[in-house]
Amino acid sequence: MSNIAASIITIGDELLIGQVIDTNSAWIAQRLNRMGIDVQRRVAVGDERAAIVHALDEELSKSSLVIITGGLGPTADDITKPLLNEYFGGKMIVDERVLAHLKEMMIRRNRPVLERNMKQAEVPDVCTVLTNKMGSAPGMWFEKDGKVIIALPGVPFEMVSIMEDEGLPRLKERFTSDALLHRSIITAGEGESYIAEKIKDLEEALPTHIRLAYLPGAGMVRLRLTGRGGDAVQLAEELSAAQTAIAARIENIVVALEDIPLEHVLANWFRKEGKTLGLAESCTGGNVAHHLTQIKGASEYFKGSIVCYRNEIKEHVIGVATATIEQHGAISEETVTEMVKGALKVLDVDYAYAVTGILDSDGELYGAPSGTVWMAVADKERVDTKKFYFPFDRLRNKDMATSMGMLMIWKFINNRP
Amino acid sequence: MSNIAASIITIGDELLIGQVIDTNSAWIAQRLNRMGIDVQRRVAVGDERAAIVHALDEELSKSSLVIITGGLGPTADDITKPLLNEYFGGKMIVDERVLAHLKEMMIRRNRPVLERNMKQAEVPDVCTVLTNKMGSAPGMWFEKDGKVIIALPGVPFEMVSIMEDEGLPRLKERFTSDALLHRSIITAGEGESYIAEKIKDLEEALPTHIRLAYLPGAGMVRLRLTGRGGDAVQLAEELSAAQTAIAARIENIVVALEDIPLEHVLANWFRKEGKTLGLAESCTGGNVAHHLTQIKGASEYFKGSIVCYRNEIKEHVIGVATATIEQHGAISEETVTEMVKGALKVLDVDYAYAVTGILDSDGELYGAPSGTVWMAVADKERVDTKKFYFPFDRLRNKDMATSMGMLMIWKFINNRP
Repeated sequence: MSNIAASIITIGDELLIGQVIDTNSAWIAQRLNRMGIDVQRRVAVGDERAAIVHALDEELSKSSLVIITGGLGPTADDITKPLLNEYFGGKMIVDERVLAHLKEMMIRRNRPVLERNMKQAEVPDVCTVLTNKMGSAPGMWFEKDGKVIIALPGVPFEMVSIMEDEGLPRLKERFTSDALLHRSIITAGEGESYIAEKIKDLEEALPTHIRLAYLPGAGMVRLRLTGRGGDAVQLAEELSAAQTAIAARIENIVVALEDIPLEHVLANWFRKEGKTLGLAESCTGGNVAHHLTQIKGASEYFKGSIVCYRNEIKEHVIGVATATIEQHGAISEETVTEMVKGALKVLDVDYAYAVTGILDSDGELYGAPSGTVWMAVADKERVDTKKFYFPFDRLRNKDMATSMGMLMIWKFINNRP
Repeated sequence: MSNIAASIITIGDELLIGQVIDTNSAWIAQRLNRMGIDVQRRVAVGDERAAIVHALDEELSKSSLVIITGGLGPTADDITKPLLNEYFGGKMIVDERVLAHLKEMMIRRNRPVLERNMKQAEVPDVCTVLTNKMGSAPGMWFEKDGKVIIALPGVPFEMVSIMEDEGLPRLKERFTSDALLHRSIITAGEGESYIAEKIKDLEEALPTHIRLAYLPGAGMVRLRLTGRGGDAVQLAEELSAAQTAIAARIENIVVALEDIPLEHVLANWFRKEGKTLGLAESCTGGNVAHHLTQIKGASEYFKGSIVCYRNEIKEHVIGVATATIEQHGAISEETVTEMVKGALKVLDVDYAYAVTGILDSDGELYGAPSGTVWMAVADKERVDTKKFYFPFDRLRNKDMATSMGMLMIWKFINNRP
């Protein structure tokens, strides 16, 4: 078995003070993984010369491939490019293709061509330039002692564009490796301990080249089987067999047999059935609609959402009776029931979902304990309502309510308790 | 100057295959930073014994504080706890307080008490237990050769709860350090090269203990000044002086003098002015509303959003004329103008924002090039419209449109071009 081991080094003070969440590493790891390249370490360091050099030394001693992001911009805090030039013993030269691209960009954006920008056309003569169609800082590909080092800008869409256009195709040519395959099972309604007990014997019987991981999230647990082997066809069969056996054992809680988010599971069902969905969202503030519309082609089934953050919108746009809110409060079974029925009618849909609640720690002001949320799902015949208590802060409660909302829709259409 | 250097080690295969984006590190880094503790390295490794031990050795050789997240759960892929027990030469004992908490949790959740769960009450006798009110895996505090090691579960809200309740207060007692302070300037409308040229002399004149970083994002650049020093009062004065001088130089593009997101800047303005805002969102699918409602107290000014994903909702709920869509298309200046006027009326607000576009790569199907987005902002007197082209994929275009939309509202209310 030949394993290609990779490290990712992300550079930037903003990562170390927590100002920015690193999404680049996850994207890179996913893509390398699909090619059978194993990311074994990810390291983040600041914009400090010694720290960067040390990380390079260390990761190059462990991995055959090191991918570096960040520090390639035109400002004084960007020190990666000259540092790499020195590290690999090159000298800086102007790359004419990059220069032409920069000038063209500046003209297109109607901006003067500053000397500072022109600096970005300088690259170490010991690297292969990876074109950055989306921005001004080019990517760089170095080789040393049979190892590959790729440097990329930290701006996510620039990094993605360079890797898709040039980085990944070149890596594919350069490295061949064992197959690395995954299978997933998405479950809802039970915790990881429950599942682990149920499938104990199946888990223990897995061969050593197949691993099982549990990933718990809001009301759901994702199971991931990972296998590695020289024979991709045989490995795929082994993994599918294990997935089928586990899924059969916990059949009643299985949501999907692929690693897709719940919004994707919902889109698949609604599009298959040719049914439509609409929402009335108060406390989630549009977040359920935002999730549903992340899926391409959502308009085939999703008509829209009335984000009725203020009570007057619940009344005037959705038609909740003023008396209902006055008597029972905005956060009540009565109000959420009128909201879901109103959404069915106003949006003219087959299925509707409604949610109203108080996510903050000062819920008492609204006549309900903090974190109280009422939800409802309905079709023309049936209305299901449910009350939740979310114990966290505003943002976490909002995310949790959004996930539990989509789960409630899923349970409704699948007749699950 | 005394610097406390810290490392964060995150454990879990899901981080290395890119299945999960690591938000824990950013949160921990932020909180340590506020206390003057410098995170100098972040390392992610898989659920592999040798990799974890190696990372521990390495980070303990570099940092006085090492924070570990992940691998504390009850399933077979969670190996951190026994490994730490061995690493620090302890033996596993049952912690009665954790056991009682576990039993109480299981009863509250109406779940049987499994032996597997009870295992979670076992902790190394060489650690101090940090209570996990939100879950079953306790946090652990180890000391070795004057260094502190904290192990936390990887589930974000459990990690946060343990750190807030016990981790951070204990760290505050344990470490004293230099002040580490930040000042920010948020700008819109120019790139980082433009800003760097404008403030070149000011940047060069900064003392060595103050650093300036540029953080570019959709249409905006955030500048961050970071200073470190023994005298917090003096440092604060120096930083504020530098911030004032830079902000004065680029006055025309300054959005805010604190590191807050645009939705917060908008909330501040609307609440101060006592004005209301409403939205009509098509292609952003509720994402603008979702952003605005991330801010506590948003209901003081934000009434709601009509997420009119399908044309029939644009017509029936917002009142866009069928003829307008038929003649000019759903993605047109005429349609977005009727949307914004409709939102002003239907939601009865002082200001409204509307957006309609095609984010996918198959825009041609809708009679507009892919990435074409029309936006409008209006009050009772005035309507501004603008056409954008976003060049990325669906999800990035959606985020970009959301940011540019909030920026367009900000420009409208501040009379910026």
